[in-house]
Amino acid sequence: MIPSKQDILNAYNCVKPFVHRTPVLSSSAINELAGTSILFKCENFQKMGAFKMRGAVNAIQNLSEIQKEKGVVTHSSGNFGQAVALASNELGIKAYVVMPENAPSVKKEAVLGYGAEVIFCESTLKAREATSKKIVQEKGATFLHPSNNLDVILGNATATLELLEEYPTLDVVLTPVGGGGLIAGTALSAYYFGKNCKTIGGEPSNVNDAFRSLKSGVIETNETSNTIADGLRTNLGDINFPIIQKLLKEIICVEELEIVEAMKLIWERMKIMVEPSSAVPLAAVLQQKEKLKGQKIGIILSGGNVDVKNLPF
Amino acid sequence: MIPSKQDILNAYNCVKPFVHRTPVLSSSAINELAGTSILFKCENFQKMGAFKMRGAVNAIQNLSEIQKEKGVVTHSSGNFGQAVALASNELGIKAYVVMPENAPSVKKEAVLGYGAEVIFCESTLKAREATSKKIVQEKGATFLHPSNNLDVILGNATATLELLEEYPTLDVVLTPVGGGGLIAGTALSAYYFGKNCKTIGGEPSNVNDAFRSLKSGVIETNETSNTIADGLRTNLGDINFPIIQKLLKEIICVEELEIVEAMKLIWERMKIMVEPSSAVPLAAVLQQKEKLKGQKIGIILSGGNVDVKNLPF
Repeated sequence: MIPSKQDILNAYNCVKPFVHRTPVLSSSAINELAGTSILFKCENFQKMGAFKMRGAVNAIQNLSEIQKEKGVVTHSSGNFGQAVALASNELGIKAYVVMPENAPSVKKEAVLGYGAEVIFCESTLKAREATSKKIVQEKGATFLHPSNNLDVILGNATATLELLEEYPTLDVVLTPVGGGGLIAGTALSAYYFGKNCKTIGGEPSNVNDAFRSLKSGVIETNETSNTIADGLRTNLGDINFPIIQKLLKEIICVEELEIVEAMKLIWERMKIMVEPSSAVPLAAVLQQKEKLKGQKIGIILSGGNVDVKNLPF
Repeated sequence: MIPSKQDILNAYNCVKPFVHRTPVLSSSAINELAGTSILFKCENFQKMGAFKMRGAVNAIQNLSEIQKEKGVVTHSSGNFGQAVALASNELGIKAYVVMPENAPSVKKEAVLGYGAEVIFCESTLKAREATSKKIVQEKGATFLHPSNNLDVILGNATATLELLEEYPTLDVVLTPVGGGGLIAGTALSAYYFGKNCKTIGGEPSNVNDAFRSLKSGVIETNETSNTIADGLRTNLGDINFPIIQKLLKEIICVEELEIVEAMKLIWERMKIMVEPSSAVPLAAVLQQKEKLKGQKIGIILSGGNVDVKNLPF
């Protein structure tokens, strides 16, 4: 049983007052290179700089009043920590964000700046999970998973809902694949609101657990987290995987150099900042341009939180 | 005698089919910092990456048929060279761009990529002018000055025309001041299409010839070109200076560090790429925020052509 069209519309009602309706941009130079027409949904311009705001708002809005009183907890050194911090702030609830001690100070400051309480722990998944669990037990806070949570997935779906409202005849929507929360939401919206609109994922070859999971039919893991696309190092989960299995057409794997090249293209040609993860779908389109020729393509630019002092080019 | 409202409307008719209507963006984080509301007209998203496309198209469109047959020439290592190259290409005329031998290869390639003929010369203003003159004499091409040309000024004015069409109640429009072509066009549009809309210039203190010229009443020159805002190292001219004298309210001078800080703010908060020159007006607003408090401000983000391998932060 996958979520219904109405579930996404309900999520949109929850999310809409708290997020930007992000613009859709295109680049004739990139279209020429790709031999097709690409519309970029600019979630890098979203509040806190990434689509994650949508999922965080929806998940928090759908808590019970008692849960809201006790607050929420997540562990993340990336965009979801910031999203939970900002969404909680705007919705007036308490947020605990568990972060590794060695997280970049710019990320610590962002989460603190949005008013969350930051709890530091060792830089292992085990330590993060244990610390989060302790806060759940001690404070009664509700744990929010960044990608394997149905309300997060439904919130994420609203980016593609907006894109298809404006461009209803897209043939394909592409997103990066990390923990599976964005691609699952996207696939739902493409299925319900598109006209025969396919969803395709882009995934770094180095961490292509989703690509392998789709083939094997069980959730596979990554042996390394060695990719520049720092938002895509995570694994699929048991809530998003069934949706992905049912609705996703294909995952295209891309190499690190292809990601950097696509990121540079977006920066230089579109004059907008995207993080490496956001460049993965364009890298996929450029790799498979013969196959995608002439299709009307939508790409979700997932986020723009990148350290300008540490660029890959 | 300054140009008329109708002159700008005529320019807009010439320019419109060949330029993007660029989006207007805002940032709540920057508004909060500035204590006011700022609308950014994103000419960094313009074709070839800068407002200069508008002036180049208008100047070329207003040539006689005989002039068009012989082509145009300009000397520029910056955005105007690219603008003349691209505009000429789109309008089907020949363009010669004189560039210093030591111009960055990325700029040479851009001009060549737009189909212009590049003529290299020594890296002095004298050599550039002599080389341009030679082409005028030998080829019969028409020389286009980047800023001291009435049709260029009128073309540039169309950015603010578009901004005021969408936001007619702006109190102030700010632009960077370099050769004076953008600020003169902006002041004209603010005067004719605004409702008591003032124009204010932002200029690097290191090259503040316009600031000093406004005070003294004669065109002053710079003793140095030492500013990070590489688009603003040029001097006013006898065509734009009278317009500036008549219509400009004020020029605010900003320091190099203020420019870098404002540029970083735009990059990090708005997730868009602007060149250092474009950050000068925001630097001016932040410096004078007490005075500008509560005003509805428009800023022309003049361009986004920056070498991502060589950032000031």
